[in-house]
Amino acid sequence: MPSDDRLQRYADLALRVGLNLQEGQPLVLSGSAESRPLLRALARSAYRLGARAVVVDLHDPALGRIDLEDVWEAYLDEVPDWFVQARVRAVDAGAAQLSLTDADPFLLRGVDPARLARRMQAAARARRPYLERVGAHKVNWLALGAATPAWARAVFPELAPDETTERLWEAIFATVRLDAPDPEAAWRDHVAALEARAATLNRARFAALIFEGPGTELRVGLAQRHVWKSAVAEAQNGVRFVPNLPTEEVFTAPDPERVEGVVTSTRPLNIGGTLVEGLRVTFAGGRAVELEAAQGLEAVRAVLATDAAAPRLGEVALVETPNPVFDRGRLFLNTLYDENAASHLAFGRAYPDTLGLAEGDDTALTAAGGNASTVHLDWMIGSPEVDVWGERADGARVPLMKRGRWVDAAR
Amino acid sequence: MPSDDRLQRYADLALRVGLNLQEGQPLVLSGSAESRPLLRALARSAYRLGARAVVVDLHDPALGRIDLEDVWEAYLDEVPDWFVQARVRAVDAGAAQLSLTDADPFLLRGVDPARLARRMQAAARARRPYLERVGAHKVNWLALGAATPAWARAVFPELAPDETTERLWEAIFATVRLDAPDPEAAWRDHVAALEARAATLNRARFAALIFEGPGTELRVGLAQRHVWKSAVAEAQNGVRFVPNLPTEEVFTAPDPERVEGVVTSTRPLNIGGTLVEGLRVTFAGGRAVELEAAQGLEAVRAVLATDAAAPRLGEVALVETPNPVFDRGRLFLNTLYDENAASHLAFGRAYPDTLGLAEGDDTALTAAGGNASTVHLDWMIGSPEVDVWGERADGARVPLMKRGRWVDAAR
Repeated sequence: MPSDDRLQRYADLALRVGLNLQEGQPLVLSGSAESRPLLRALARSAYRLGARAVVVDLHDPALGRIDLEDVWEAYLDEVPDWFVQARVRAVDAGAAQLSLTDADPFLLRGVDPARLARRMQAAARARRPYLERVGAHKVNWLALGAATPAWARAVFPELAPDETTERLWEAIFATVRLDAPDPEAAWRDHVAALEARAATLNRARFAALIFEGPGTELRVGLAQRHVWKSAVAEAQNGVRFVPNLPTEEVFTAPDPERVEGVVTSTRPLNIGGTLVEGLRVTFAGGRAVELEAAQGLEAVRAVLATDAAAPRLGEVALVETPNPVFDRGRLFLNTLYDENAASHLAFGRAYPDTLGLAEGDDTALTAAGGNASTVHLDWMIGSPEVDVWGERADGARVPLMKRGRWVDAAR
Repeated sequence: MPSDDRLQRYADLALRVGLNLQEGQPLVLSGSAESRPLLRALARSAYRLGARAVVVDLHDPALGRIDLEDVWEAYLDEVPDWFVQARVRAVDAGAAQLSLTDADPFLLRGVDPARLARRMQAAARARRPYLERVGAHKVNWLALGAATPAWARAVFPELAPDETTERLWEAIFATVRLDAPDPEAAWRDHVAALEARAATLNRARFAALIFEGPGTELRVGLAQRHVWKSAVAEAQNGVRFVPNLPTEEVFTAPDPERVEGVVTSTRPLNIGGTLVEGLRVTFAGGRAVELEAAQGLEAVRAVLATDAAAPRLGEVALVETPNPVFDRGRLFLNTLYDENAASHLAFGRAYPDTLGLAEGDDTALTAAGGNASTVHLDWMIGSPEVDVWGERADGARVPLMKRGRWVDAAR
């Protein structure tokens, strides 16, 4: 366990530069029972900032697995929404939402995939009213990492079990620049730089991006109404917040019909406990038409079989390397971190705000030229060996990244 | 930690002879995060019995204390009811309710009593819709003990900390006869004996009870419409259940105006972290007019100052000694156990069903001759040195207990 002091500084940073909790605003915290020390630090920090109330929604991952394995077949498709509705009421009452991402990446290994799929769908139906509100930024919210023993053992399998949690905490703290002389100032500078980058890209109005690197020759058409987004969002309650800590990306919506070429993943990918390595995808007319992998290909195929739009792209994100996440040199087995290590693509659903939409029902997404699949699967394609160009409507190419770095970046 | 097997047998016993969970019935479990091993065993057991869903409401006592200490004065009287409403919805959907009693008896030691009182009142207001439903037996419910490290250290302060939790588990298992050759059969016999005892007392229709022992000469008038209750209840959903494990008592409603004499407590009493020892109370006209104690008297005075009916009785319970709770020879610092160790009285509110009422609003309670205070404070007055008589309306006395034992009891 990190010292109380470091945990408290992490909590303070999260509430101030991430969630931007307002005086008099209620707060709902959620996380696994293993993360109680951080949840307590967050509660203390929130009350110091004048939180009207702090309510904590604790869960136990092991109970989730028992539920999946033991519930009778007849009840598999029913998930009560009592506690989801509590979260919905909290959002509607203006409560900020802070969710810890602290899961064991291998928790569901070995669970019958057919039962898993049915249960996950039922759970998603129950959670939809909550996720829609958060997705539409009805209130300020934050996803924040917390090291738990099972997650840490998965990330550092070669270390002695009692060393791993401490190591993962150190990695997490490094990704949020907690050891900078003034972490809050460091974050404000970093966020301003990402916002400036997104603004520049929005002015450029590229028609496509070109990726070139080892095993990669890819052209990603951008949606005509694409908007580049960065770290910062503004909630419907008027609060500006940074929904992910860490965040290193600027991202937008590809055109799901205009992606051509071959792309090779630069990092392994964890899909529900299956590690996918050496993924290589060929696109034609926007669709993934050929898939190869050294390991775990069936897990990718299962995701892409979900619906007709799943084998098409919904997000393209540019991430400069190196950066504090990339520098850890380690797969976190957790999207919050891994997607901020390097430039990435996502199969499936687009973010409504990358198409200029406030909310994202399927009709609105499709009408705006975005992907309305029900899945969203990020995978990393950037590295210090990959170059990126922006392509204008007239075919002219502008270099954006050389060897992983922004061409005009000073650092 | 007890073995998985013993924990599973405890869980099975709780769901079968305590809660009587029905096939196809949803279940809400609640308890502290420390009690996850038992909660997991209960979930497994519930799914084996065909639970439609098992939803777990976890809490962290340390977060509760942070809330009490750190919330700003301006917000002290507001407690959001989002998650209470989730429990209400679950009850209204027919879900059985199982709450673990696993608290650290000294958790709130040192908290500013004025803040504590205001916060507790606000929390009680938020919880009222839930507690009313459970109190009216809208569904089958159960209060069940679980040993946690902080509670165990408080019970066994003389032992090494790493031995205490195991010792408390053993004590808990003994109180529910888990090591009987057939614990379920032992419980069914025990419950039938308590029911028979209540039936006999209901036929007798005593006007008063007389207690005599060291420092005790007390006459407790019974409410004219008093009903003796025992372990078993029938919920509005038609399910018969035993709401407390363990349970050793038969209990009824005294007449709050007709209690006379002196009574000396036979066991210490824990009031929010203050231990009350050697409590001695003189009653006149039903009211406690004189209080003495070797220690902790101010905590009793604070409870009795809550409202005008608090210094009058609301419950009298007869418990044979010895019994498996009494036999532990140890104060559990937890009412579920301590009130089942010996005969006891309670200052404050009466249970509606001991006055033949289904629900208990203040008007109905008062009209039926019961105590409608907002507090309920149990304290032990029985022991193997105390005798009890029933007194008929004509003044004739019938011996009920000699030296702590039912006079007609064979064992």
